[in-house]
Amino acid sequence: MNSNSIVIMAGGAGTRLWPKSRLKKPKQLYALVNNDSMIRNTVNRLIPVVGEKNIFIATNVNQAQEIAKELPELKNNILIEPFVRNTAPCIGLGALKMIETAETVAFLPSDHYIGNVKEFQKVLKEAFRVAQKDYLVLIGIRPTDPDTGLGYIEMGNNLEKDVYKVRRFVEKPDLKTAQKYLKSGKFLWNGGMFIAKPKFILELFKKHSRGIYKNLENIKDSPKNLNKIYEKMENISFDYAIAEKAEKIAVIPGDFAWSDIGNWKKLLEMLSRKDQENTIVGCEHYGVETSGCLIHGTDRLVATIGLKDIIVVDTPDVVLICHKDKAQEVRKVVEILKLKGQEKYL
Amino acid sequence: MNSNSIVIMAGGAGTRLWPKSRLKKPKQLYALVNNDSMIRNTVNRLIPVVGEKNIFIATNVNQAQEIAKELPELKNNILIEPFVRNTAPCIGLGALKMIETAETVAFLPSDHYIGNVKEFQKVLKEAFRVAQKDYLVLIGIRPTDPDTGLGYIEMGNNLEKDVYKVRRFVEKPDLKTAQKYLKSGKFLWNGGMFIAKPKFILELFKKHSRGIYKNLENIKDSPKNLNKIYEKMENISFDYAIAEKAEKIAVIPGDFAWSDIGNWKKLLEMLSRKDQENTIVGCEHYGVETSGCLIHGTDRLVATIGLKDIIVVDTPDVVLICHKDKAQEVRKVVEILKLKGQEKYL
Repeated sequence: MNSNSIVIMAGGAGTRLWPKSRLKKPKQLYALVNNDSMIRNTVNRLIPVVGEKNIFIATNVNQAQEIAKELPELKNNILIEPFVRNTAPCIGLGALKMIETAETVAFLPSDHYIGNVKEFQKVLKEAFRVAQKDYLVLIGIRPTDPDTGLGYIEMGNNLEKDVYKVRRFVEKPDLKTAQKYLKSGKFLWNGGMFIAKPKFILELFKKHSRGIYKNLENIKDSPKNLNKIYEKMENISFDYAIAEKAEKIAVIPGDFAWSDIGNWKKLLEMLSRKDQENTIVGCEHYGVETSGCLIHGTDRLVATIGLKDIIVVDTPDVVLICHKDKAQEVRKVVEILKLKGQEKYL
Repeated sequence: MNSNSIVIMAGGAGTRLWPKSRLKKPKQLYALVNNDSMIRNTVNRLIPVVGEKNIFIATNVNQAQEIAKELPELKNNILIEPFVRNTAPCIGLGALKMIETAETVAFLPSDHYIGNVKEFQKVLKEAFRVAQKDYLVLIGIRPTDPDTGLGYIEMGNNLEKDVYKVRRFVEKPDLKTAQKYLKSGKFLWNGGMFIAKPKFILELFKKHSRGIYKNLENIKDSPKNLNKIYEKMENISFDYAIAEKAEKIAVIPGDFAWSDIGNWKKLLEMLSRKDQENTIVGCEHYGVETSGCLIHGTDRLVATIGLKDIIVVDTPDVVLICHKDKAQEVRKVVEILKLKGQEKYL
């Protein structure tokens, strides 16, 4: 046992990218930024760091089949969560499963965009190195704008060159606060990337999240009861349950053209080019007096006249038309559909 | 021979209602205002005036099959134009075919909306009566707004009570002129409805449109050459070729909640109700911060967020999204598609 492993967390629902992202085939399984799915891009950029056999996918029962289809070479490396819970139980279970085989593990999102892959790989290797010192290591992203849709990490004192102790976590700030953070240079975006020894992670659970820790112990003692035990797991994020309470926690700032593609507007901003009036993905588009629009389609023709800053998402059974500044509200539509019992559209 | 007949002109392409209206299945074949197709509504309102057996449909080869499907009871009353020409050859050929069987014939559009059917029927009967006096009779519509997308008819002196001689025809005016027309009370919208004896119509062709008249004579002499002769017909409207030149021409003003549904905005205006934020036809719609929109769909879900005054037309192979004040520009998209050879979308 002397290796670094990676667990890609692929259980998210990505409802803000509805109607492309669906319960059974969410965001990470779609080609949003190039011809490959988000999760395929994620795997591709991680293989050079730890090798294919050390890459695992944590996902839930709803999505496991689609993921195995998308990543057939990794189908034996899928860790299935029997119920949809949050990142704390996911990382706990992952640490438990890795404890015999991996010295350090990185838990990474499956559906983020990273423009500068080389730089990201360099930072990740650094994180593996620092994690050896019994630290929970985060990778933070240097903010490029005052984003109010992301959590922030405040950097404390240097632990070593380019590695900082975490002073505190801050939830999604208001615009004024986000602008202050950006200006200060002391805050990073929290990209949800955690690197540590599995043993160290389990110790953190033991100290800060007794309930989950007990469940993990029970799973270890009687693996055949996984389903029953996992169902009782607290639905809580790793940030809340562990990271915010941990003492030996460090962050490495990264600068690698990152986006969580948290909603359609972010995708538009990421894909739009100055030399193009509109951003067209996956379909034919004819526009008259149309500018600043994202047209994200499939095999149908999309025609637009007299539109500005509008996002059109065309899927086989739903079409969404949304002003880009209202992209956050996509969730509301998904909530309405849930309330109305329109399962087929979720 | 002592009857009134009607020829419904159903050869139009309705390109401004693209993508619902297509070359092989244009506007008149769609349910736009209620559950029946426009042409079915047209037939229904004419049966009480002349009886089913006296109703004929003039159309071209592209659409004949779909029309026979839509109106099976009239499939033996379809007059097929072998080539797509304009209304002058259509009305000429219709008059020729009716000359032995009908005393007077009304040539009427297939795809207009008429809200007050009783009033329309009354005016049409009046028109048949006046046509007996060897007049070309038009039905004009009292304007309700300064529409710049329609032709106008200026009324001259009274021929009898509520029947006027036509002073002149005016093509689509600019807004200022249209406002003047509306205020004057002397102008009517030209709804393209012509009533006359077939013999009188042929005399008008003889006098004002020698080319078409000669072709009609040739068709009469050798009906088997119809195709070859019709191909040579001038592509000109009856308004230009005949009506603007005729001397014995009268107009009867009508006030029956008429619309040519000339574009999507007009359909929106016609269907919108004060008690509803948006106008939804044929599909499910969930809207957040959406108002003044027309959503005209099929079996897919349409979701909208942060939209105002937008028209969405969802069809199986095309989705159109258009600001309502740009509804006239739909033609431009159709032209682009023609230029690009995208026949399947026409």
